[in-house]
Amino acid sequence: MSKNLTNRSEDYSKWYNELVVKADLAENSSVRGCMVIKPYGYAIWEKIQKELDNKFKETGHYNAYFPLFVPKSLFEAEEKNAEGFAKECAVVTHYRLKNDENNPGKLKVDENSKLDEELIVRPTSEAVIWNTYKKWIQSYRDLPILLNQWANVVRWEMRTRLFLRTSEFLWQEGHTAHATKNEAIEEAKLINKLYADFLNDFMAISVVSGTKSESERFAGAEETYCIEALMQDGKALQAGTSHFLGQNFAKAFDVKFSDKNGKLEHVWATSWGVSTRLMGALIMTHGDDNGLVLPPKLAPNQIVIIPIFKSENELNNVLSYIEPYVERIRGLGYSIKVDDRLNFKPGYKYNEHELKGVPIRVTVGLRDIENKSAEIFRRDTLFKENININDLISKVDFLINDIQTNLTTKSKNFQLNNTRVAKNYDEFKKLIKEGGFVLAHWDGTKETEQKIKNETKATIRCIPESKSKSGDCIITGNKSLKRVYFAKSY
Amino acid sequence: MSKNLTNRSEDYSKWYNELVVKADLAENSSVRGCMVIKPYGYAIWEKIQKELDNKFKETGHYNAYFPLFVPKSLFEAEEKNAEGFAKECAVVTHYRLKNDENNPGKLKVDENSKLDEELIVRPTSEAVIWNTYKKWIQSYRDLPILLNQWANVVRWEMRTRLFLRTSEFLWQEGHTAHATKNEAIEEAKLINKLYADFLNDFMAISVVSGTKSESERFAGAEETYCIEALMQDGKALQAGTSHFLGQNFAKAFDVKFSDKNGKLEHVWATSWGVSTRLMGALIMTHGDDNGLVLPPKLAPNQIVIIPIFKSENELNNVLSYIEPYVERIRGLGYSIKVDDRLNFKPGYKYNEHELKGVPIRVTVGLRDIENKSAEIFRRDTLFKENININDLISKVDFLINDIQTNLTTKSKNFQLNNTRVAKNYDEFKKLIKEGGFVLAHWDGTKETEQKIKNETKATIRCIPESKSKSGDCIITGNKSLKRVYFAKSY
Repeated sequence: MSKNLTNRSEDYSKWYNELVVKADLAENSSVRGCMVIKPYGYAIWEKIQKELDNKFKETGHYNAYFPLFVPKSLFEAEEKNAEGFAKECAVVTHYRLKNDENNPGKLKVDENSKLDEELIVRPTSEAVIWNTYKKWIQSYRDLPILLNQWANVVRWEMRTRLFLRTSEFLWQEGHTAHATKNEAIEEAKLINKLYADFLNDFMAISVVSGTKSESERFAGAEETYCIEALMQDGKALQAGTSHFLGQNFAKAFDVKFSDKNGKLEHVWATSWGVSTRLMGALIMTHGDDNGLVLPPKLAPNQIVIIPIFKSENELNNVLSYIEPYVERIRGLGYSIKVDDRLNFKPGYKYNEHELKGVPIRVTVGLRDIENKSAEIFRRDTLFKENININDLISKVDFLINDIQTNLTTKSKNFQLNNTRVAKNYDEFKKLIKEGGFVLAHWDGTKETEQKIKNETKATIRCIPESKSKSGDCIITGNKSLKRVYFAKSY
Repeated sequence: MSKNLTNRSEDYSKWYNELVVKADLAENSSVRGCMVIKPYGYAIWEKIQKELDNKFKETGHYNAYFPLFVPKSLFEAEEKNAEGFAKECAVVTHYRLKNDENNPGKLKVDENSKLDEELIVRPTSEAVIWNTYKKWIQSYRDLPILLNQWANVVRWEMRTRLFLRTSEFLWQEGHTAHATKNEAIEEAKLINKLYADFLNDFMAISVVSGTKSESERFAGAEETYCIEALMQDGKALQAGTSHFLGQNFAKAFDVKFSDKNGKLEHVWATSWGVSTRLMGALIMTHGDDNGLVLPPKLAPNQIVIIPIFKSENELNNVLSYIEPYVERIRGLGYSIKVDDRLNFKPGYKYNEHELKGVPIRVTVGLRDIENKSAEIFRRDTLFKENININDLISKVDFLINDIQTNLTTKSKNFQLNNTRVAKNYDEFKKLIKEGGFVLAHWDGTKETEQKIKNETKATIRCIPESKSKSGDCIITGNKSLKRVYFAKSY
């Protein structure tokens, strides 16, 4: 397999698009804006799902499933939310096709099957879920409700890119109901921290976290907590959001509970989600000019063994030589694949597994049998060495951890090296042009935010929680409590 | 919690509908025909998913994900398949809503967002998948492709029932591509056997398996393998199907491969699926007048401990007494829940956990501390006994296995006891009226099948693979190679 991959420095965007396809992660389908997630990409997504699902369950959440469709009257009940999604939703209007009498063998919509009320394909599920919670919640004893669902959602995007922005995507959406405002806020924060830890510890992606400005908030939220990662081209990527919804949905759907004193009150809510967009973050954070680079915790195959052989007999000798080690590595819980395909040359296999980001490659040939050796290659640094075969297990064990740590550190350093403070607007404009996060004082108004966006394309990615020094807004000179993160973004 | 559940003998159908809701498995949503799967129901579905997913992977299958929408032109490409689903599909015609100027705060479909080509919400994914396989398959080296996806599908059903028949349901659908006819047939059979084993070994549901008659086949299939289970009311339930699709989809989507000699040939296909309908089979196979009865392998909580107490102090004493045993049971890998809720009385808890089918209940009070005892109750037989606390672990260990085995045997016996041979049509009509499977000779024609269906409502559920004796058709007297399974069905 020839890699034939555009260099990042040449065209980062083209590099990304090519890599997603060449590494067998996903491809465009015949349906506008919808992707096919290929088995290799889906195997990575399954690892993301499994780890997140465990974390949700450990923190007291349960999974459930709510309908794909939202009747229009429910959809429009929470006005801000509806307004936010109205322009990009797929609408089901009919429920039957019939033979097209003018085109034998073809079908057309049966006009007699028009629905009385249109159904919206869920862009998010607050409406349908809060309409259900209304039936479930009467008393404080019914609270909290801590649910999550793994589902597909549809947002009719005009410009789509595999994983980053697709009309249909897969995600998880948590929806919780609480008796007090504080409890709901704590839940939203807990999940945002869970997301940040997951990205750092599992995906080896460093993020900044905090809240969104009002204009970047989720439609219908009182506060949006978020994590933002920095891609190699200096643009930020929103990787996850967790919303404190106040009582907005409880009011829209009339969901009240009686507290211990019998007093009726509206319920407090959160919602939160991460999506297949994380696959985009993964690719763009770690990938290099040779292809994907996978943190071992996410790699469907952590180790690949390439036997070198000229005949089936030679192959069998190499396989017998390596087999006890393969078994022991598997016994340690690592996933290992022996690529013994006959129709492909070693060079082709090297390229393929490099493209697919397999963390560790071990090559073994006849000479290694004589020398009791093996060649081991780590994908992150591209470093290759010959080792004694007796050291293979400990070396693999070491590398699995070291590659994960190295990628985490690299991501952290990249973020730190590309986060700079702008003292004034001139400096700000220069730094934004160069890319990365720019920390700057902002007076807290929509107007200033909009002006900066119009003039530089940079938006406020995140208002950090940490208390930094107060200062003067770079635009208006008005008082600013702390510096906030600006960047151009995906 | 009062059970207040209709008796099965009184009204089996009402019993089912009530139980699904009372056991917190699912409920109807505000969207016509679509259900909400509640956390408890979803936890059971997750167990089904996990076990099946492992079995698919062990047999060489990978997961992937294909789009929710099927453009009409793709949908209609395989004519038989399209014809089979055209009358029940949700159609997306627009992609935007706008403010309704006549109703402030309300939305309406934006007529300017009409799609050039309508999108069908997938009722099944052959079309969209084979249109993709066309890109993936050129040579015999690209075969076989063995994929599965976990997804939601929509079939616009007029009469819906929770789990059994809903407009949206969750399922897995396998789609495989092969170089030879034989290999595809073997795959379809392999999966049908996998399904049968899964139902028997994991869900404790006995099934008969074989093929469908032509008129009961999946639209677009050459052969449909199936498993059929018998419910307590004597009606059959189709629990899973596995289709040999021949070259129908390859021809419709022009998918060819070059074989080893360079000759171009159409690809051979299978597809197969089980759905949330299995939840219905589970409920109706094992449930009794006290509620759900769960085989231990599917129970989210296999054991529940009910402490008996009058004060928090007493509760703490009981909890300390039982804690070491709880830890050891957990250590054996069993899921155990201590129901220490203060606001609910033991009787309420008993009813609730019986309704929810928890396999084993252990009750412990102050007197048990004195006597070093506990009361243990098994849900399947409702048998209760006092045991020495030191025997608790071994008793639980024994019951987990014994309940699973007992339910499997019970289901098998029920099926055997309710499968009878009809020697002639009069006997057939009598037996069908009484319920259960009726084995009878059939001449293999659609006409005979239709006549029987019209007159008795019974259909051919399955043509068994085993070779039984030949004989004469109960209707026409023509030759019949073997007896086939008839029943009324869900």
